[in-house]
Amino acid sequence: MRHKLFVANRGEIALRIIRSAQELGLETVLGVSSADVDSVGAQRADRVVVLGPAPARDSYLDAALVVHAARETGCTALHPGYGFLSERAELAELCRREGLIFVGPGPESIRAVGDKLSARALARQAGVPLTSGSEKVGDVAQALTIAQDIGYPVITKASAGGGGRGMVVAYGPDDLKTSFDQASTTAREAFGDGTLYLERYVEVARHVEVQVVGDGEGRIVHFGERDCSVQRRYQKMIEEAPAAILPPEVRSRLQEAAISLLSSINYRNAGTVEFLYDVERQDFFFMEVNARIQVEHPVSEEITGVDLVAAQLRLATGTGSLPDQAQVQTHGHAIEVRIIAEDPENDFAPSPGRITRWEPPVGKGIRIDSAAQAGTLVSPYYDSMIAKLIVHADNREAAVALLADALDAFVIEGIATNIPLLREIVAHEDYRANAINTRWLETTFLPNRQTAR
Amino acid sequence: MRHKLFVANRGEIALRIIRSAQELGLETVLGVSSADVDSVGAQRADRVVVLGPAPARDSYLDAALVVHAARETGCTALHPGYGFLSERAELAELCRREGLIFVGPGPESIRAVGDKLSARALARQAGVPLTSGSEKVGDVAQALTIAQDIGYPVITKASAGGGGRGMVVAYGPDDLKTSFDQASTTAREAFGDGTLYLERYVEVARHVEVQVVGDGEGRIVHFGERDCSVQRRYQKMIEEAPAAILPPEVRSRLQEAAISLLSSINYRNAGTVEFLYDVERQDFFFMEVNARIQVEHPVSEEITGVDLVAAQLRLATGTGSLPDQAQVQTHGHAIEVRIIAEDPENDFAPSPGRITRWEPPVGKGIRIDSAAQAGTLVSPYYDSMIAKLIVHADNREAAVALLADALDAFVIEGIATNIPLLREIVAHEDYRANAINTRWLETTFLPNRQTAR
Repeated sequence: MRHKLFVANRGEIALRIIRSAQELGLETVLGVSSADVDSVGAQRADRVVVLGPAPARDSYLDAALVVHAARETGCTALHPGYGFLSERAELAELCRREGLIFVGPGPESIRAVGDKLSARALARQAGVPLTSGSEKVGDVAQALTIAQDIGYPVITKASAGGGGRGMVVAYGPDDLKTSFDQASTTAREAFGDGTLYLERYVEVARHVEVQVVGDGEGRIVHFGERDCSVQRRYQKMIEEAPAAILPPEVRSRLQEAAISLLSSINYRNAGTVEFLYDVERQDFFFMEVNARIQVEHPVSEEITGVDLVAAQLRLATGTGSLPDQAQVQTHGHAIEVRIIAEDPENDFAPSPGRITRWEPPVGKGIRIDSAAQAGTLVSPYYDSMIAKLIVHADNREAAVALLADALDAFVIEGIATNIPLLREIVAHEDYRANAINTRWLETTFLPNRQTAR
Repeated sequence: MRHKLFVANRGEIALRIIRSAQELGLETVLGVSSADVDSVGAQRADRVVVLGPAPARDSYLDAALVVHAARETGCTALHPGYGFLSERAELAELCRREGLIFVGPGPESIRAVGDKLSARALARQAGVPLTSGSEKVGDVAQALTIAQDIGYPVITKASAGGGGRGMVVAYGPDDLKTSFDQASTTAREAFGDGTLYLERYVEVARHVEVQVVGDGEGRIVHFGERDCSVQRRYQKMIEEAPAAILPPEVRSRLQEAAISLLSSINYRNAGTVEFLYDVERQDFFFMEVNARIQVEHPVSEEITGVDLVAAQLRLATGTGSLPDQAQVQTHGHAIEVRIIAEDPENDFAPSPGRITRWEPPVGKGIRIDSAAQAGTLVSPYYDSMIAKLIVHADNREAAVALLADALDAFVIEGIATNIPLLREIVAHEDYRANAINTRWLETTFLPNRQTAR
């Protein structure tokens, strides 16, 4: 049986999925909004179907519409990409009901890890270290009592979702009083559920995460870990593999923790377990699970040589099995930077518009994942990431040199981008020395940059 | 001691060498002709020095001038790239005399393998299979006698060099009479030496070659083999790694033959041993040795994950050693196509001029080695290859699918290129089935294409 794949996404990840599917000999159907009918993805897919108008809620975010389109076009499988519907258990459920293979975990797994409190419970059962934290917090008064127990600083988190929405750090009771209701409102607006919980806030930490793939029968293989500590407002800007900061013994424990957590629920397909790492104490703490392929998956592909999207498709369609852990070897160091249509000189305001000049860097070890080209209209409707620049070299120092050169050669005109900012970050001595943490960009780099200007 | 590298080449390979050198922390100086002062390589090098006017004999081909420029700029090492002076023993000798590290084999090795008859003698001593052939042939009369012994068809070859110059196939005495003097004249014009020899011509064969690196003390490590059978006029157009046609046992013997040949002369640095492979009889025959990095080295880099130029630099500067053979593992399949500024619809005439639009394909598994960009003036003075498109995927079928997609997406305007022709070749059922040989393009593909038009 030749499978036919519905690609339920847009932009670079749609193109990325189409390519790997075609390499595996699968036919592809891309569902697009009316704003994306001329996209590069639409040109590359074997067939294109228009889902609805540009606003995502009328097209990419409508699960019933997406599954209907997949059925109507004779598809047998559906890949959700990242963002949009990718972590909605109801999409996985709808697919199951309609006889479509969902390229991802089962709805039970998505629910089990998607609810952050439930994920913390799983981690606890699996013996994975956690920061001290609470169950659901009803109101400010309860929050204040709990925070007293945990000890300040604390961070509020939305039970229903991640991505920085609903996350506020409080350094004392006054902070918490002013921020709690606002955080709950943000969470309700973003996820339809304002439930918050509290965690002890680890101030100086690195964001490290383990890429895994599970076979749905309890076997989980990891594909190394990533370090994503260069962040702004909890949004990753630069991602690396491996996490060069980790001592080998900690790296092994981290990988084992991720495997242990997800094997307990017979996790299926690709996923990521995120941790905070306390560099001084060499301790790590579970943060959350992302039940999908992530934006930063290419750095893991580069160091392992494994096509993770192809691995997802092979597993889902039953045309391939998980490799043995010993077969997964890593080589060298890879770094990804997110190229974003935004203006760092204007408070990072999105900068939609038409790209008039587009000259990506080329050469050994340089990979660009992007659906943009000269003439592309960057839409205000969607995420403003327009490209990922990924470099791979023998070690971190060589990769940083290559990245600096590649950023220098990258020419985009017509819209503002964060490329000039990325060049400055990559040239900074702290970044070169890998002496950064998740707060470095916002508390060290950006303030000093603004002062200096 | 921090080494300073003189890059004695231009175009994509100059840029390629500069990148790997910078990743290793070396300072770079690029010698350019006056036509190349604004090249991408010149922008990337730490320092640029003008060698002389555009014609290569007054700049890139003047060994004394090149070595003088390297000394004057304080360089400690020199990389010759491919073409130009790369296989001239006198350059290696000049470097030695001036105290410069030559990133390549010693002059004795270059001479030993550069003279084709001497190389055949080496192969014979090392027990490497050869086609039946002659020593130097004095004149037509002697050629006719020898050809009678060897058996027709025979091919004339220049003792002093390769690249197709001086090579003529004769199917009988009349052919040989008419072609011998012309071949000798061509050889004299190209290499300053008209000496020819004869070999039995293997008609239906594949071109396979083994990439090796030697430590200069008798240890040789191979980095897999390549298949370069899609050729026109003995010029490679498409190169793949591994050579998927080879049975495993033949592949091992081929690799051993290459190592045995070069270890006998304590070969140092990168080199390639070329063979003809008779698919039906599963026999291979030694052809020649290329004592330099080759145009098609990227496919071997992609399947092994080894930066061969960095390996050259590390070995030459004594900052790294050869890996053990067991450490060199290959993964997947890689294909390179040469993008050439020529017009296949006008008898492959060179098409110099200004590139007005330049949109290389991007994505996982796609690598472009090129120094071209929008606005680049392709000079009539130099080789007309403007880019190499390299793809890497899990197997040959996936790599061909990716290559077809990448060629489809590659946009170059302003000059004619061979991209449309490459698209047709890659779509052809013979190419897809890997059922080709070194004569396929000229005797099967091109004639049928012209008839059909």
